[in-house]
Amino acid sequence: MRILITGGAGFIGSHLCDRLLSDDHSVVAIDNLITGSSNNISHLSENKNFSFIYHNVADYINFSDPVDAVMHFASPASPSQTAPTGYLQLPIQTLKAGALGTLNALGVAKKHAAVFLLASTSEVYGDPLEHPQSETYWGNVDPIGPRSVYDEAKRFAEALTMAYQRTHGVDTRIVRIFNTYGPRMAMDDGRAVPNFIHQALRETSLTIYGDGKQTRSFCYVDDLVNGIVALLESREHHPVNLGNPHEITIMELADAINKITNNTAGTVFTDGRTRSDPQQRQPDISRAEELLRWQPCISLQVGLQKTIKFYKDKLAAHK
Amino acid sequence: MRILITGGAGFIGSHLCDRLLSDDHSVVAIDNLITGSSNNISHLSENKNFSFIYHNVADYINFSDPVDAVMHFASPASPSQTAPTGYLQLPIQTLKAGALGTLNALGVAKKHAAVFLLASTSEVYGDPLEHPQSETYWGNVDPIGPRSVYDEAKRFAEALTMAYQRTHGVDTRIVRIFNTYGPRMAMDDGRAVPNFIHQALRETSLTIYGDGKQTRSFCYVDDLVNGIVALLESREHHPVNLGNPHEITIMELADAINKITNNTAGTVFTDGRTRSDPQQRQPDISRAEELLRWQPCISLQVGLQKTIKFYKDKLAAHK
Repeated sequence: MRILITGGAGFIGSHLCDRLLSDDHSVVAIDNLITGSSNNISHLSENKNFSFIYHNVADYINFSDPVDAVMHFASPASPSQTAPTGYLQLPIQTLKAGALGTLNALGVAKKHAAVFLLASTSEVYGDPLEHPQSETYWGNVDPIGPRSVYDEAKRFAEALTMAYQRTHGVDTRIVRIFNTYGPRMAMDDGRAVPNFIHQALRETSLTIYGDGKQTRSFCYVDDLVNGIVALLESREHHPVNLGNPHEITIMELADAINKITNNTAGTVFTDGRTRSDPQQRQPDISRAEELLRWQPCISLQVGLQKTIKFYKDKLAAHK
Repeated sequence: MRILITGGAGFIGSHLCDRLLSDDHSVVAIDNLITGSSNNISHLSENKNFSFIYHNVADYINFSDPVDAVMHFASPASPSQTAPTGYLQLPIQTLKAGALGTLNALGVAKKHAAVFLLASTSEVYGDPLEHPQSETYWGNVDPIGPRSVYDEAKRFAEALTMAYQRTHGVDTRIVRIFNTYGPRMAMDDGRAVPNFIHQALRETSLTIYGDGKQTRSFCYVDDLVNGIVALLESREHHPVNLGNPHEITIMELADAINKITNNTAGTVFTDGRTRSDPQQRQPDISRAEELLRWQPCISLQVGLQKTIKFYKDKLAAHK
């Protein structure tokens, strides 16, 4: 298959490129590199099955070559209040990537009768009043708050994708991605895993916001990519949650990272931030288990080891 | 002031044109007439302060003349499952009017440092779990259902409007419009008031879906327009509900219309439709009362008389 991936130089997008290339597909990545990085795909530059187009998906995508699938992954995605690549720092770009980007990517899929897959998010559930969240939950989202630039853009993207399926018969998929971690997350992404690893590799104390007892669930990126490929190969039009339902406390995460990195500086506690991290969300993955025979299988221990190795190598290369 | 009104040939948009012209403003109406009608503005064709541009707001609005306010009213708005102008029949156009139309209209406002007013809707509350709905309620909307083409488009439009206010300093307003009726609603609009009047003027029985005990609240269009103008003149960036909080049963509405039209054919009952009409919604208008000193003051009796006269005259003219 020939597959177009918007946001192909991003964290998840670039892993998807790797996986699809290793499955012998041909991949075209589109990215404007405002949150993605050419470092994430530089190892593919000699691969004859890979090509890269520098382009903003909010602008019309002029793509005349035949294509079998279009996967729309382009968007800022970090909720960090301070990270320069977070969607709170890129509000208009985020809204445009969700609305115009989805429209343009759907246009390519429609033109070529290709499968379309939308990367949606657990943030469509907002501050959920149901735990865990299943795909039938309608969510609890503030339409006018600062985070609405991401949440509402993705909800709009889902509505648009369903409308293209119903009206134009485009063969669509929607994946709702929960917290994911792994190599190639930007070091300044602002989320817990890269923050902690960053501090641990510098042998400083890991900063815990709040009492550390709040829980999160983290999915390793290879698990996620397996699920996305399974969804692409399915015929399921309705949204499917992908994420790791196993919850751990932030304290446990910090301890695990300190242990793997042999960081003896421990942890420090500071006041909780107001909504800079996603609120607690936990995926109900029964649909993915049933429809795709998918479940995450990489342990936090193994996933963190791989992730830490990536950052270690990166820091060593910069010395 | 010079005011640009998208959807200026629509039901509410055309009343707004009339009102602003009578207040000595200059008005430019933009419309592609897919749900609006040139009949709604034909009486303005000789008015030197009025001009009309035939244009789809989903396409870039090339407007170089200075303008003081941009009011974005363009969108299909009827939830009818059968009306050709309902948003369920125009799903992609509705999504585009909400996203691209709002973006383009905001672009004009930004360029000219004009006030921007978004016509939003009570449908951002979806199937509300709180009654009545105040502006702080986040709503209960299905992001992937057929109606999401309108609900999510308007939620996205609100998020985009707030982002332009926060990021670009555009001086924005958001009005959440509840059920409104009056002259110029399309006869085939599919909603209760035009349906009933249509039947009554043909001296047939009024068709009531369900037992007629379900309640609705209806605001006469002149009341609504007063509130919109007051909001435009305010400095309020956050959404403001405008609607009539007075609830009546569908049976009472039917009886009132039969009485005014001297229709002796009465009513017939049939099975309730599934979500073809909005679910029950009732506005909490305390913000409008406090901020704008606004409340609806036209009684249902008077509003219906004016509306029925309009349709009567229209039918007579076609004979």
